[in-house]
Parts: sequence; C-alpha cells; structure tokens
Amino acid sequence: MRYIGLVHYPVLNRAGELIVSAVTNLDIHDIARAAATYDVMNFFVITPLERQMALTREIMGHWLTGVGGTLNADRKKAMETVRVVSSVGEALSAIENRHGRSPEVYATTACRRPDAVSWRYLRNHIDMLDAPVCLLFGTASGLAMELLPPVNGILEPIYGPGDYNHLSVRSAVSVALDRLFGCY
Amino acid sequence: MRYIGLVHYPVLNRAGELIVSAVTNLDIHDIARAAATYDVMNFFVITPLERQMALTREIMGHWLTGVGGTLNADRKKAMETVRVVSSVGEALSAIENRHGRSPEVYATTACRRPDAVSWRYLRNHIDMLDAPVCLLFGTASGLAMELLPPVNGILEPIYGPGDYNHLSVRSAVSVALDRLFGCY
Repeated sequence: MRYIGLVHYPVLNRAGELIVSAVTNLDIHDIARAAATYDVMNFFVITPLERQMALTREIMGHWLTGVGGTLNADRKKAMETVRVVSSVGEALSAIENRHGRSPEVYATTACRRPDAVSWRYLRNHIDMLDAPVCLLFGTASGLAMELLPPVNGILEPIYGPGDYNHLSVRSAVSVALDRLFGCY
Repeated sequence: MRYIGLVHYPVLNRAGELIVSAVTNLDIHDIARAAATYDVMNFFVITPLERQMALTREIMGHWLTGVGGTLNADRKKAMETVRVVSSVGEALSAIENRHGRSPEVYATTACRRPDAVSWRYLRNHIDMLDAPVCLLFGTASGLAMELLPPVNGILEPIYGPGDYNHLSVRSAVSVALDRLFGCY
C-alpha cells in the first residue's frame, strides 16, 4: 500500500517563488521504473495544467497501448504504475477511495529541519503500519510545504558523507525508496 | 578514494550483442550530482568515440566555464567530478597514477550470479580498505563482462521487494552509492 507523488505544483523555484513546474519525460520513466522496483502501487504525476496532463498521458500511451510496450514489456509494466492527477489532494483521495482509509503522508525536502522524520524511523513505522502511505517529492527547488494538505511528517534530507545535497529528483526518489523498502 | 565509471563500451544491447552506446546528457548530470553527494573523486564517462567524447566535453564546458556554472554553482561543483576517457583501462590507469596503486574494481549487473559480492560485504570492505575503489556501471543492457579488465568482484543486482529490476542507470548509480556510502 505504497504510493508516491511527484509534485509540479505547489513547488518553489530557485528564488523561493511559487511556480508550476513542467513535466519532464525522463522523470516519468525513471520514477516509474523505481516505483515498479519497490512495489509502489501508484506513482502520481501531479500537475494542475491540462496541457501538461495531456502530454503526460500521451507519453504513457506510447508505452501502454502503443508500439513502445510491444518493444519493451518491462517499460510497459513500469508505466502501468503511473496516474496523472491535478492536485495532491486528488492523489490522496484516490488512495483513500481504494483502501477505505486515508494514507499517512510524508513530504520530502532538501532542507534540514529540527522536526524531520528519520529514514530508519519511517522504515520501521511503515513495516508496522496498517494504513496506506504516500511519499511526496517536489520538482524544481522543492515542495511549497505550507500549501500542501496536512502531512504526517517531513523526512530528513538525503545526504552522503559531505554537505552536497543536490541530487536530481529522479535520484532522490530512487534512494528514498531504497532506504524505506530496499532488500539487501 | 572512490571512483565510478559509466561505460558506453563494452556494453550489450537488448539482443545481447556488443555495442557502443550513446552518451546521454541527463546521465552526465544526474550521475555527477550523485557523485558529488557521495564524495566520489571522479566520475569517468567512458566512450571510445571521439565525437561522443567531444560532445561530453561540450556539455561539461557549459557548466564548468560557460554561463551554466555562473547560474548554478551547485551544478558546476558536480560537473567538476566528471572526466572523459576512452576506455575502462584508461580510467583505471588515471586512478593508479593519482594514488600510486591500482584500484579495486567492482562491476555491476542486473543479473543474479552465484559469485556476486553483497552490498553489505562491500560497504564494510571499503571501510577498511587502504586502496582506491572504482565501481563500473554499464549503459544500454549492461556491461560486457568478458571484455573488461580483471575486476575484484561483481556486485549483486539491485532488487526491491519484488522481481522487477529495471532501474535506469541513473537510479542504479544513486542507489548503489547510497548503499555503499550513505549516512543516515
């Protein structure tokens, strides 16, 4: 009962201003493949712009019903996790409708916060959880937290040994899923 | 003393044939950012094709000496890890020349093998290692192992809870570095 959402609104640009970011083709592919790897039920591509929603569905269609899926069945399987929705709230409602209860929601950030939830805590917590869980990732320079629906927590940022923490969102989603659900 | 190499030759295509794959712009960006995050000294982009080497250097130049680095200093820092070389052997020689001893080399694969090195073993091993270490990642459908210089081991593939293991190479590098060098 794991879900992820890639948020294109509400997010911030480098200047800290509220924007709608553009959907990126390779985000859809890479994150769908990570979702399939880590047993994520749906990967929500979240954008309020109708043209961007249509573009996303067109890309998906190439792999779900077009020639792409015939040539590459693995990619088709990944694309089957993707759903396009207009808001974070719509994603959370879809999860609630499916499971009969609302998900626990965790946002991600590249900023250090005193109240951050640790990866180890959340991994153990999810193991014992009887509710669906949804992780939210921001594109551009990250989620506009105050405009999100209420969340259960904000995860600590992903660091290596140093102080550089500018992973692509594609990398960040992959590392996050591995920290929470990896088996090795 | 950590290094990674992204190999465009020798690699296999989906039919298992030996090919030279094309350099992908977003591989350079995403993997350079992961390299900077996990204190990798150099990320070697490995291709024998002179036009592809020139293209890679042109992309890097935009960020290292062009307007990109002025606008985004974080990306410049990531790009500073990148080196373009014509072969795996040339990458390993460069490491040996820098440190005065040859690196331990570990290849990656999406295939299960009875002799695979586990992630936990290698993490502990590297912690105690006094030599440089280099991880090799294949593009396309993976490394042509028999055409590589001798390696110290081949890592187990990256799996989540299920049997789908078709991560992008961008995701695979990120997860591998986090498994070996992540701090959380």
